[in-house]
Amino acid sequence: MRDRAIPEATVGRLPIYLRALIEMAENGAATISSGDLAEAAGVNSAKVRKDLSYLGSYGTRGVGYDVAYLIHQVRRELGLTQHWPVVIAGAGNLGHALSNYKGFSERGFRIVSLVDNEEEKVGERIGDMAVEHIDWLPEIVRRKDVAIGVICTPAGAAQEVADRMVAAGIRSILNFAPAVISVPEHVSVRKVDLSIELQILAYYEQRKAVLAAVKGGRAALDLAPVP
Amino acid sequence: MRDRAIPEATVGRLPIYLRALIEMAENGAATISSGDLAEAAGVNSAKVRKDLSYLGSYGTRGVGYDVAYLIHQVRRELGLTQHWPVVIAGAGNLGHALSNYKGFSERGFRIVSLVDNEEEKVGERIGDMAVEHIDWLPEIVRRKDVAIGVICTPAGAAQEVADRMVAAGIRSILNFAPAVISVPEHVSVRKVDLSIELQILAYYEQRKAVLAAVKGGRAALDLAPVP
Repeated sequence: MRDRAIPEATVGRLPIYLRALIEMAENGAATISSGDLAEAAGVNSAKVRKDLSYLGSYGTRGVGYDVAYLIHQVRRELGLTQHWPVVIAGAGNLGHALSNYKGFSERGFRIVSLVDNEEEKVGERIGDMAVEHIDWLPEIVRRKDVAIGVICTPAGAAQEVADRMVAAGIRSILNFAPAVISVPEHVSVRKVDLSIELQILAYYEQRKAVLAAVKGGRAALDLAPVP
Repeated sequence: MRDRAIPEATVGRLPIYLRALIEMAENGAATISSGDLAEAAGVNSAKVRKDLSYLGSYGTRGVGYDVAYLIHQVRRELGLTQHWPVVIAGAGNLGHALSNYKGFSERGFRIVSLVDNEEEKVGERIGDMAVEHIDWLPEIVRRKDVAIGVICTPAGAAQEVADRMVAAGIRSILNFAPAVISVPEHVSVRKVDLSIELQILAYYEQRKAVLAAVKGGRAALDLAPVP
């Protein structure tokens, strides 16, 4: 029985290791060094070794880690060896996009229902699902044993939807709406901000411009006649 | 002229600090301690102080940091004080959702065009834009000075779209397609995996179940008669 907690930062890196490991396995790698995994995940190798030690995985000196077994260990630790029924609230463009998002099903997340509060959307087909009314949420959660809800509504509706999810028995919420929601202590919330990666790109884009200017300045100096 | 680089991990946390700071400012906070900012961002306060020191921001003992000024410093460091024209490739559900995503415009990212390779999508209205043909990409990039491209195509099209973006002069790519893309060294790529936050939720969801089981076991032991 694993009843010890792993540090939050390590939990946050496990999905990144998992993605890198799956890519490596697809490319035919059987073993991997902590250094290679570190490079693929964008962290240093001491951190990789420390993180993996929480999973009871230490690798073999000179050989590294067994990729297939490490994938199993990370998936087990994250709880991805079971299937997670997920409900999405909000049948707009983002709700549609997430309903079809292959990355979810590949990781064990199964979208079992897409709910909305607009009568005219109810019954609309999305893949092999039909949009259901949000009033049916308690029934859907009970019948399909849903633990995770995803909020894809406009910001103004997010808190009400969160309240209805909690009342229906959902214990974990992923919030894509650009709004802060409050929930009781026993409910976990993660917020996705789709602009974060763009902001990181902007930083490097800006640095390229700064470095080009600095380099240009230096080149000009190099060309200047020696006094 | 700022020509020193900030550690990659710090760059990754700056958008998270920024989001927390903007929320605090909206709630009327004028100053903030490193401890409060650390809690809001989910890191420890020594790390916050270290990260902010790269921005030349040290706070005032017993007072903390000036929220408005710190927002300005983080935005400046990330390059968000200027506007970034962005092109989205792929006019499917995700492309539509991102075109309307308020979180982008609030951070200085302006979607100037949505391109697709399907003739029947060209001309389709999305807000105040019309879908343009991907063949026009070089012209769009030149005319609108686009530096950042967002890939929202199916996995199979991602590499070709990336090649066309690079050929058109785009230097930073945000990839939402579940595919690995290769680009020349001077181009930056960030990959968004929408399932990462779900995986983190699954971990905590699973732990709740484990802890409930452990607690149940202990409660049973507590009730057992002392031998």
